[in-house]
Amino acid sequence: MPDSKFKAFVFDAYGTLFDVHSVIEKCNELFPGKGETISRVWRQKQLEYSFLRQLMGRYTTFLEITGDALRYACKDARAELSQNTEKELIDSYLKLKHYEETEEVLRKLQPYRTAIFSNGSLNMLTPLINQSPFAPLLDDVLSVDEVKQFKPTPMSYQLVLEKMEVRREEVLFMSSNTWDIAGAASFGFHTAWINRQGREMDQLGIKPHYEYEDLRGILEHVK
Amino acid sequence: MPDSKFKAFVFDAYGTLFDVHSVIEKCNELFPGKGETISRVWRQKQLEYSFLRQLMGRYTTFLEITGDALRYACKDARAELSQNTEKELIDSYLKLKHYEETEEVLRKLQPYRTAIFSNGSLNMLTPLINQSPFAPLLDDVLSVDEVKQFKPTPMSYQLVLEKMEVRREEVLFMSSNTWDIAGAASFGFHTAWINRQGREMDQLGIKPHYEYEDLRGILEHVK
Repeated sequence: MPDSKFKAFVFDAYGTLFDVHSVIEKCNELFPGKGETISRVWRQKQLEYSFLRQLMGRYTTFLEITGDALRYACKDARAELSQNTEKELIDSYLKLKHYEETEEVLRKLQPYRTAIFSNGSLNMLTPLINQSPFAPLLDDVLSVDEVKQFKPTPMSYQLVLEKMEVRREEVLFMSSNTWDIAGAASFGFHTAWINRQGREMDQLGIKPHYEYEDLRGILEHVK
Repeated sequence: MPDSKFKAFVFDAYGTLFDVHSVIEKCNELFPGKGETISRVWRQKQLEYSFLRQLMGRYTTFLEITGDALRYACKDARAELSQNTEKELIDSYLKLKHYEETEEVLRKLQPYRTAIFSNGSLNMLTPLINQSPFAPLLDDVLSVDEVKQFKPTPMSYQLVLEKMEVRREEVLFMSSNTWDIAGAASFGFHTAWINRQGREMDQLGIKPHYEYEDLRGILEHVK
């Protein structure tokens, strides 16, 4: 019988299991000298557009938003984006590198329910996860697209409870994104902030329950 | 009889009538060499926190959020923020410089209804507007705080209709903030993007009706 106060270990995808900046290399190859800026603005706008569309009541899929954000980032950097280049960069988003400890950690969590819960739509998440070595170690892949509510709205996190048939206090939720940790903790999950870059927590009146440098830290809850 | 298709000319405050980066000087004085970064992160987090709190259902006033964002910006820049320094910087937010053409433009709009509509709470807006030369030229100062809905939610823009007793198509709304233009246009206002820095419009599937370098451009609608 597994011995943890948590029944379900739920992971954000982008930034948490997969390194969104692993597209820098491809960006640099296509736009010499501008790759880092384009990659940074791309990610920043991707998040911002998901928040803004939710606020305006104009939901569209994260894949659409990812393309919109890329187009903005290229215009902003005065970099011409051909249709082929756009396709190539979006494709690279479906092949992001995962953080190296992910497989080992998921393996040690096997007695428990594990899931990914992401703002990404399934047409992005499925190819991404299938090219990783840990696809068979996940019980569920949950996308907000099913409820058309981006994190961090409370209604988005509710999907985890419905799909995994757990109570909110039985969930340990992992994210590297401070806004996701704030939303999940505000909803009632226990939260572990995977703070890979030694950042400051955002000042949103909410603290993570746990903070770790990488995913290995959460294994203290399954001893 | 005034001759325009618009009955009400409604202005965003921060970035549109008042220069939020006029605090750089004070930041640089207090934190030599770090003023520009702190000022930029302060503004970025101020916006982000208003969006995130709205999404999480954790509204608090924009004055609170402005303090939270300042505390984050200083931590992030490894700059110590004493209580006195914090007070001094927040006070400087109540004395932002206005863009020079504002008074002239508001004067020419006098036959029409004019208003400020801002995410700022009245305890920020009132002192700010009262120290400007154009306070007597405004018919209304409207704060989202009355409905506890930050822009760009549709419910926030609804306040303008209720308070000014106009229909949405009778409003010309001015903002320098692309997310505010998108929200206002999505709601049904006519919009004029005051694009002072020659930026790219965000890729949110919405275009401003008009785009001007500064506020003087809108005067073509009152000839």
